[in-house]
Amino acid sequence: MTEMETIAIEPPELTLQQVFILLEQEQFDPLQTLLNEFPPKQLALMLEAMPPAERKQLWELIPETLSAETLTFLHDEVRNSLIAEMPAEALAAAAEQMEVIDLAYIMEDLPAPVRQTLEESLPDDILEHLENTLSFEEGSAGRLMSTDVISVRSDVSLGVVKRYLHLHEDLPDYTDGLMVADRDGIYQGKLLLNRVLTGDDEDLVQDVMNSQHKPILATASEHDIALFFEQSHFVSTAVVDENNRLLGRISLDYVIAILKAEADHALLGRAGLDEEADLFAPVLNSARRRTVWLAINLVTAFLAAWVIGLYADTLEKIVALAVLMPIVASMGGIAGSQTLTLTIRGLALDQISSGNKAWLARKEVLIGIINGLLWALVVSGVAWLWFRDSGISLVIGAAIVVNLVAAAAAGIAIPLILQRLRIDPALSGAVILTTVTDVVGFMSFLGLATQFLV
Amino acid sequence: MTEMETIAIEPPELTLQQVFILLEQEQFDPLQTLLNEFPPKQLALMLEAMPPAERKQLWELIPETLSAETLTFLHDEVRNSLIAEMPAEALAAAAEQMEVIDLAYIMEDLPAPVRQTLEESLPDDILEHLENTLSFEEGSAGRLMSTDVISVRSDVSLGVVKRYLHLHEDLPDYTDGLMVADRDGIYQGKLLLNRVLTGDDEDLVQDVMNSQHKPILATASEHDIALFFEQSHFVSTAVVDENNRLLGRISLDYVIAILKAEADHALLGRAGLDEEADLFAPVLNSARRRTVWLAINLVTAFLAAWVIGLYADTLEKIVALAVLMPIVASMGGIAGSQTLTLTIRGLALDQISSGNKAWLARKEVLIGIINGLLWALVVSGVAWLWFRDSGISLVIGAAIVVNLVAAAAAGIAIPLILQRLRIDPALSGAVILTTVTDVVGFMSFLGLATQFLV
Repeated sequence: MTEMETIAIEPPELTLQQVFILLEQEQFDPLQTLLNEFPPKQLALMLEAMPPAERKQLWELIPETLSAETLTFLHDEVRNSLIAEMPAEALAAAAEQMEVIDLAYIMEDLPAPVRQTLEESLPDDILEHLENTLSFEEGSAGRLMSTDVISVRSDVSLGVVKRYLHLHEDLPDYTDGLMVADRDGIYQGKLLLNRVLTGDDEDLVQDVMNSQHKPILATASEHDIALFFEQSHFVSTAVVDENNRLLGRISLDYVIAILKAEADHALLGRAGLDEEADLFAPVLNSARRRTVWLAINLVTAFLAAWVIGLYADTLEKIVALAVLMPIVASMGGIAGSQTLTLTIRGLALDQISSGNKAWLARKEVLIGIINGLLWALVVSGVAWLWFRDSGISLVIGAAIVVNLVAAAAAGIAIPLILQRLRIDPALSGAVILTTVTDVVGFMSFLGLATQFLV
Repeated sequence: MTEMETIAIEPPELTLQQVFILLEQEQFDPLQTLLNEFPPKQLALMLEAMPPAERKQLWELIPETLSAETLTFLHDEVRNSLIAEMPAEALAAAAEQMEVIDLAYIMEDLPAPVRQTLEESLPDDILEHLENTLSFEEGSAGRLMSTDVISVRSDVSLGVVKRYLHLHEDLPDYTDGLMVADRDGIYQGKLLLNRVLTGDDEDLVQDVMNSQHKPILATASEHDIALFFEQSHFVSTAVVDENNRLLGRISLDYVIAILKAEADHALLGRAGLDEEADLFAPVLNSARRRTVWLAINLVTAFLAAWVIGLYADTLEKIVALAVLMPIVASMGGIAGSQTLTLTIRGLALDQISSGNKAWLARKEVLIGIINGLLWALVVSGVAWLWFRDSGISLVIGAAIVVNLVAAAAAGIAIPLILQRLRIDPALSGAVILTTVTDVVGFMSFLGLATQFLV
């Protein structure tokens, strides 16, 4: 056995709970020592999980060497609130330590005066680099790329490359190869480190480089970047301009960041929430932000109420209808959300085209009919046991079939229409679907009852 | 300019729609030629997007060289349906082409007889390797690791390492370093390829290797693996047993697969759907699977109906209550789902501990009170304009405040309780929340009305 310990996963030497306890006990020195060893990404998660007072205390204890990187991992609102309290010099010092990609990302969200002060304090070379990065659109490969690239010419030998690399102390993270470019900086291919190691000193770069390693255009979107890496086996790839000139490189770790951000956006967006918001923002700010979603929903709810109101006379005569009507609406909502979810996923994966749309719609409607009939039977049965009124039983059964079929059709149609209108179906699809299933549910149930029971 | 074309993203030379058209026109030869160039991951997505007849046609056109890898990317149900139709020899041939990790993954889901026939046809070395992989739990690092590892001893020089690597044609994908192990196979650290290239021939491995590169235990879970890579800058890492013996390695690309699967599971799970199900499964199968979720919801809906039924006398007297009651329930449901979503995310990121639970609960309840009062005002106003009854207006306002506060409390409490019970709050939280907001909504509104208006 060696002396090295076996450590499976870096054990969380410091849990959030322990930080709260150390802060409360004012054990600032031991806490600071522990924080020194902590990955900035974890520090960011902890800061986000702290109410304002504790957050401020913790932030002041984070060593300067880690604060720049920690800032880059924070959500916008938390980061901006911390920056707002930082003295201009501290912010400038942090900015100089950041990678320019991260700096550009942060700058864009800063209030104009803070941004201006910061720009004035930055050294010229960083400022120039920053302006260059900011010239690319947010979320594009140009904005995300690192310019920390080692490039070689195709007509040199591996021996020369080896001697050149030997001059370096270390290579940038996620370097799996060197970019090959000609005298004019035009990208020609990638020389994998593997190849440098397995090749002969006399081999020329052009003979062992991989010219199938396609570059990414600086204007490519985050979504395209993620797709590109998923379909390749690359750890990093070249970024080029429209003339194929080598500008920088992007590595696989960004794909992970992109995928996590997309998942977070989808999860929170469905509840009308902003993923960049601070969990511990002032109550009034949070209340204001959430209220928009409630307002949208209220319109839906009043629409449903209006439909019910159309049948007020019927309800007055048969109160059992009021008791049972939420069941019809709710079953439709649940069945519709299943179809909606599958359709949204299919669209996101480019799995829905005019070649299978009709097939899918038919299948979903058939499922709606089958499950509609099944649950109509169950609900009718329970309604009969409850109210001993065969008319009500028949009407609720029919309404359930109608609503489940409508829900299936809406679950397919709504996302397809929204996509054509260039509205993200993942964000607004559910609200519209609920409107449909509520309106159809109440209308079919109370309408049939008015027709046949009154 | 060079002769090389600039290609940003591998252009989708073949869209799903084109495949449908080529199949319909029976242009099988040109289609097969196009498929030859297609990444297996894309082929899998296309197969999943096809109704049974077209899927069968396309599958038969996919060249044998790609079919093994394509199988590994398919969701369970689609894959098993294709395998069920494959002759035993074709399946055996595909199995031999697969990496053992993938083979193990596929084997577990096969029906016992198919599995047995397949096992009997496999060469002894693959079978042994397979059994070894299957001895680790599903989803553990041992199951996911590749055993395709190049390891070196710590007491050799970089010159020796270079000569050794030079003997290789190529290194495995995602190789960013060599594993260093002693005579007994005990893991000692990682020798980054960077270091091999930048170091001197006389340097000893032990002096330039990175012993901070912690290994992962073979029993670590997928979630832990993802966390490990997110917090490190590694492209690959060693997998060891409890005695620190080097068993294999895991690379960053698995993390992407894990993250995508987790996001998919979360998205579909919220609608009670199984992410491994076939979008084009026979209608009856799909209907049966979806019906469970409808059954769970029906219990909720009947509970709400039962609550309404308690106030049937009141409803008979004031029919406006029946018209307005869904508004109270629905506003509570929306507000509660916002709190629920934030709490579930906070739990997933380990951002909720006893140090901030009370703070968060207080904040959410305060938001409930503020938004409750605001929307109570709006809804009361509209209700008054509609029914000109100040009693009803007051009662619905009060009920909305009560339900929004209850929704906030439930949105925090439900996921915390579910987590303590080791039930995934992301899957069942929403149903339970809706039950609470429906019951509290109807009960407060109709209860107050019964008390004060009848």
